[in-house]
Amino acid sequence: MKNTVKLGIIGLGKRGLGMLKSVIVNIKDVEITAFSDVYPDRMESAYDSVREILKEKPYFYTDYRDMLSGGKVDAVYISASWEAHTRIAIDSMNSGVIPAMEVGGAYSEQECWDLVRTQQKTQVPFMFMENCCYGKEELLGTALVRHGILGEISHCSGAYGHDLRSEVTHGKEDRHYRLRNYITRNCENYPTHELGPIAKLLNINRGNRMVSLVSVASKAAGLREYIKEHRDALDPELGNTVFRQGDIVDTLITCENGETIHLKLDTTLPRYYDRDFSVSGTKGLFRQTGNILFLDGDDESFDSTENIKTYTDSAKKYEYLLPDFWLHATEEQIKSGHGGMDYIMFSHFIDAVKNGREMPIDVYDAASWMVITALSAKSIALGSLPMAIPDFTEGEYLLRKPKDVTEL
Amino acid sequence: MKNTVKLGIIGLGKRGLGMLKSVIVNIKDVEITAFSDVYPDRMESAYDSVREILKEKPYFYTDYRDMLSGGKVDAVYISASWEAHTRIAIDSMNSGVIPAMEVGGAYSEQECWDLVRTQQKTQVPFMFMENCCYGKEELLGTALVRHGILGEISHCSGAYGHDLRSEVTHGKEDRHYRLRNYITRNCENYPTHELGPIAKLLNINRGNRMVSLVSVASKAAGLREYIKEHRDALDPELGNTVFRQGDIVDTLITCENGETIHLKLDTTLPRYYDRDFSVSGTKGLFRQTGNILFLDGDDESFDSTENIKTYTDSAKKYEYLLPDFWLHATEEQIKSGHGGMDYIMFSHFIDAVKNGREMPIDVYDAASWMVITALSAKSIALGSLPMAIPDFTEGEYLLRKPKDVTEL
Repeated sequence: MKNTVKLGIIGLGKRGLGMLKSVIVNIKDVEITAFSDVYPDRMESAYDSVREILKEKPYFYTDYRDMLSGGKVDAVYISASWEAHTRIAIDSMNSGVIPAMEVGGAYSEQECWDLVRTQQKTQVPFMFMENCCYGKEELLGTALVRHGILGEISHCSGAYGHDLRSEVTHGKEDRHYRLRNYITRNCENYPTHELGPIAKLLNINRGNRMVSLVSVASKAAGLREYIKEHRDALDPELGNTVFRQGDIVDTLITCENGETIHLKLDTTLPRYYDRDFSVSGTKGLFRQTGNILFLDGDDESFDSTENIKTYTDSAKKYEYLLPDFWLHATEEQIKSGHGGMDYIMFSHFIDAVKNGREMPIDVYDAASWMVITALSAKSIALGSLPMAIPDFTEGEYLLRKPKDVTEL
Repeated sequence: MKNTVKLGIIGLGKRGLGMLKSVIVNIKDVEITAFSDVYPDRMESAYDSVREILKEKPYFYTDYRDMLSGGKVDAVYISASWEAHTRIAIDSMNSGVIPAMEVGGAYSEQECWDLVRTQQKTQVPFMFMENCCYGKEELLGTALVRHGILGEISHCSGAYGHDLRSEVTHGKEDRHYRLRNYITRNCENYPTHELGPIAKLLNINRGNRMVSLVSVASKAAGLREYIKEHRDALDPELGNTVFRQGDIVDTLITCENGETIHLKLDTTLPRYYDRDFSVSGTKGLFRQTGNILFLDGDDESFDSTENIKTYTDSAKKYEYLLPDFWLHATEEQIKSGHGGMDYIMFSHFIDAVKNGREMPIDVYDAASWMVITALSAKSIALGSLPMAIPDFTEGEYLLRKPKDVTEL
C-alpha cells in the first residue's frame, strides 16, 4: 500500500482546472507533482489558482510524454481534448503510470480495442472517470434495483440534456475541442453520462452485454439560429459555418438479456440541464427527473402533470438505501463538483491506487461505453442501420461477477 | 347542409359504449339510429344504458354490412376491434356512408393503401378519430409553434404510457382484442395518440412527410410477472402463455424536413398515465408532462428536479393562445371523455358532416400514422432495420397547404 499518490494532471482546460481547484486539492493522500498542457499559459494560471494550497510547484510539461517518462508521477488524470484521451491513456499504461481517463466518445472501434489490448498487455490499472456513476439519483435507482423494489428490469433511459451553445460557439477563443467536433461530426458524441450508470445497473460486461444499436439524428438548426441571434458577440467566421452535428440524437441499444436502453443527446437547443436517468421494471418505475418512484398499485391520474406533482420526490423515502458516502457526504463535498459526484469518484480512484484494488470503472467499461459514439456515427451515416457492438471482454463477461461502483 | 346526422355505432365494447354514453348522446344534431356488434348482448346493454335519453330504439345489426346497406345511417362511428377497423371503413365508404374510424395500428401497408384508394375512388368523406389531436396540452404546444415561440422545430417526442396489464389479462372474459395482439405481435401497436398531434404540428402530408423509421423492442417481462402475481384471479391458461409484445417499444422517425420523432410504447409495466408530448425548437422546449415551457434565456439549475419544480405549469401563461373550444369548454364537456378531447373531436366530426366540410383528420393522416405499426413490426423482426414510410399522398404533400384541426 502506498501512503500518498503522486499525481500528474494532463490537460488544464475548463475540466482539468475545475477538478484541480474544487476536487483534487481536497483529496487526502494526493501529492500534485506535475502539470501538462500544450498551452503553457494554462499551466501557469492553474498553478496560480492553487499555489497557496500546494507545498511545491508541480513540474510543467508541454509534452505529456515527458511527464510519463519523468518519474514524478504514479498516476495521471487525463482531461485533455476528446481526440487525445485514448492515446494518452495508452502511452500512460505503456509507461507504467496509472491513467484516470476523463470521458468522451471514441472515434473508432479500433481505438477501443487498442485501449483494451494495452491494459491486458501491461496490466497497469486503468480507471474511466465517469462521474455520473456516482450520482446520487443514479445510485438510488441502482439501489432500488439491487433490493428488488423495481422487479425485473426491461428498459432504462437517460439523456445528456445540456445547452452547450455558448461553449461550442466560443470554442475558438477558448481553444475548446467541442467546436471542431460539432462542425464536422454527427453522432451521439457524449454517451457516457447516461450510459455509464445504466450499464452498471444492467451488469454490462458482467453477465450481460450490449449487442446492437441504432442512432437517428435530427436536423442541425440550434447552433445556426443561435449564431444568427448572437452574431455581434461571436467570431464572424461562424456565420458561414455549417454544423453537421444534429440537435438531438436518439440512440437505442439492445442488450443480450433483453433490456433496451434509450439515450438522448440534446445539447444545441435551449433547455434545462437534465440527465433524465430512468429505470422501468416489472414492479415499478424510477425517474431521476423529479426523483420519482411509482410502484405497482400506486394511484394514478389521467392528467400526467397531476401524477408528476403527486410523485415528485417520492423516491426520497428510500434514500436510506444509498451507499455510505452519500449518506455521510459533507456540505463541502457536495458543493465541490457536480453535486458531489466528482469528489466521491476521485476519492475512490485514489483509494484503489493506494490499496491496489480493482478499479471501479475499468477498461472494458470504457471501451464498451465509448464505442457507442463511433458506432452511432456509422449508423447515422448509413441511414440508421443497426450496428453490432463488440464484446471487448471476448466472452469473459459470462464469467465476470456483477460488481457495483459502491463495492470496494 | 344536413340538420341532423343519422349515426350508427359499430362496435359496442368498452370504447364504443363509453363514447356513446358520455359523448355521443350529448352532441347536438345527432340521431343515434343503429347499433352493430357481433355480440347481441353488447347491443342490449348499450341500449339499456341510454334508453332514457334516446327517443327511439336503434336498429340492431349483428352484421355491420346490413347496417351499411339498410339506409338508416348517414355516418358510422367504428369502434370495433383493431383488426376490423379498416375493412369496416372501406365497406362503409363503398356504401356511401361516412366513416368515423377509431384509432389503432395497421397490420399491413396494403390495408393503408386500400383505405386511401377507396376514399379516392368513392369520394366519401373519411375521418380518423384520434382524440389526442384535440388534447389541451397538445394544442397548446402546437399554438406555441404556430406563434413562433419555440423557433424552428428539430424534434418531437411522445409516449403511450398506460398500464394495460389488467385490460390485457382480462381479455378473454372481456372479449378484448388486445389480448391476442399482445400474445402474438411485437410492434409499436398503438402509435397514433402521440404521433397524431406531432404529425399535425410538423405538417406531415402538407409540405412535409415521414421518410423512415426504426423500432426497437425490449423483453416481454411485464405481463409474465403480472400473471404470476395474480394467478388466482386470472384464467389459468395465461400461466402458460408466452407474450411476444415487448414491454417497451421505442420508434424513431425521420421527416423529410429534418425533424425527428421519438415514440415510446409502454403498456405492460406499472407506471402512471402519460403521453409525454414534447417539442424541441431553436427558441424553447415545451413538455406536456408538467405543462413545462422553457424558453431561451430562462434560468436553469444543475439539479433537474429543481428545474421541474421551477417550470411545472410555466406554459399556463400561454393558454390564451388555445383555440376557442378549449377556452370556452364547459365543466360538463371536460368531464365527458378523456378530459374533453372526445367531445370536441366528435362535435367537429358531426359539424364537418353537416356542413360538408373537409375532415380535420383525413385518410392520408390515418394511413401514414397507422402504417407505423406495420413497419415497426417489420423493423423489429429484422433486427431494427430502417423501414421506408410510404408517401400515401403520392407527391400531393408538396402542394397541400398546412391545416390544423383547429381550422374549420
